Amino acid sequence: MRHPKQISDLVNCLAKLPGLGPKSATRLALYILKRPADEARSLAKALVAVKEEIHFCSLCHDYTDQDPCPRCADPKRDRAQICVVESPADLMVIESSGLYRGLYHVLGGVLNPLNGIGPEDLNAQDLLDRLQKALDAGEPIREVLLATGGSPEAESTLSYLLDRLRDFPVQITRLARGLPVGMDLEYVDGNTLKQALEFRREAREPL
Amino acid sequence: MRHPKQISDLVNCLAKLPGLGPKSATRLALYILKRPADEARSLAKALVAVKEEIHFCSLCHDYTDQDPCPRCADPKRDRAQICVVESPADLMVIESSGLYRGLYHVLGGVLNPLNGIGPEDLNAQDLLDRLQKALDAGEPIREVLLATGGSPEAESTLSYLLDRLRDFPVQITRLARGLPVGMDLEYVDGNTLKQALEFRREAREPL
Repeated sequence: MRHPKQISDLVNCLAKLPGLGPKSATRLALYILKRPADEARSLAKALVAVKEEIHFCSLCHDYTDQDPCPRCADPKRDRAQICVVESPADLMVIESSGLYRGLYHVLGGVLNPLNGIGPEDLNAQDLLDRLQKALDAGEPIREVLLATGGSPEAESTLSYLLDRLRDFPVQITRLARGLPVGMDLEYVDGNTLKQALEFRREAREPL
Repeated sequence: MRHPKQISDLVNCLAKLPGLGPKSATRLALYILKRPADEARSLAKALVAVKEEIHFCSLCHDYTDQDPCPRCADPKRDRAQICVVESPADLMVIESSGLYRGLYHVLGGVLNPLNGIGPEDLNAQDLLDRLQKALDAGEPIREVLLATGGSPEAESTLSYLLDRLRDFPVQITRLARGLPVGMDLEYVDGNTLKQALEFRREAREPL
C-alpha cells in the first residue's frame, strides 16, 4: 500500500530538484512532516515569493527585486568597470570574494551550438548596447573583464565576445589561467600546464 | 552586497533541511529561480498540504490523511499480526519489501534517556492498550513482531517492550541479527559476528 497522496506529491516535487533522488526526497519529506508546520509554511512562502518578486535587473541581468538592482544603482561602485559572468551563481562567487567593486553583466549562459544555444540566447548584444550607450553618454567604460569559466563552451563564448568587442575603445581583460593554489605540478593536467606556461610572467619585481 | 532578501530567505529555509548546507541550499535556490514558476508553486502547495492534511492514524500512528489509515482499515491484511517499528520511514521500508501483510504500530522513536526521551514519549502504552482491547473484543493478536533497528537505543527499547509485553498471551518475535547479505566474514564487526553466532540455527533441513 502506498503512502498518502500528499506525501507522494511532496516527494515527487522534491525529487525534481537537482541532487535529490527518490530516496533523499522521501527522507526530506518525512523530516518536514516531523518538524513544526511553521517551517514548512515559511519554505512554501519563500518559494512563492522568490518566483513572484524576483526578476532580472534590466542593466546587469542579475536576479533582483528592484530595477535597476541595488548594485547597479550603488554610486560607490566603480561604474567604469564591467565584469561579464556566465550566471548569477558566478556573480555571487566573485562578489563574495570581496575582490571586485565594479559593475557586472550576466550573460545568462554560454554558447552551446549542440544544445541550440546561440548568441541571441545570451545577453551579449545587450552588453554591446550597454557599452555604446555609456560611450554616447560620455561615461565610457574603462575595462570589460570577461570572467567566463574554464569549460570549452565558456572558451568559445569568450572568443565570440572578444570578436564582437574588438572595435570598442575599452580595455578587455580575462581571468588568468594557471595552476590552482595548492596544486602540485605532478598532478596538473596538460591543458592547465599549457595555459600556465602561456600566462607566465616576469617573476622579479621591477627595480 | 548581498543578494535580494527573497533569495536569502529561500536559501535559509532550504539550509534548515537535513543534508543541505548553505552552498547546496544556494545552488537549489538558483535552480528554482531558473525553472518555471509552476514548479515552485507545486512544491509550495505540496509543503502546505502535507502539513495541513497529514496527521497520525489513531490506530497505528503512521502518517495518513484518513483515520483509521487505509492500511488499518484494509480487510485483506492479517489483523492478528502487528509489526512494531520505530518510525514511518521504517514502516515504508518493510512495506515496500512486500514481505509483510499484517498491521503496524509506529513507536515514534526509541528510548533515549540522554536526550530525555522516555517511554511516555513513545506510542508504547498505546501498543499495550491496543493488544488488551483486541483481547477483550475476542479478536486476539497472534504475533507482535518487534522490528526495531540495530542501534543501542533501539536495543534498549526492544528490551523495555519485551518486559512490558511479558504477560500478554501473544507470540513476541524480533528481527534476526546476523551477517548482511554479501558481507565477507573478514570485514564483519565483532558485535555483528557475536549476534550471528547467537542467532545461528540448524543448517540441515529437518528430515
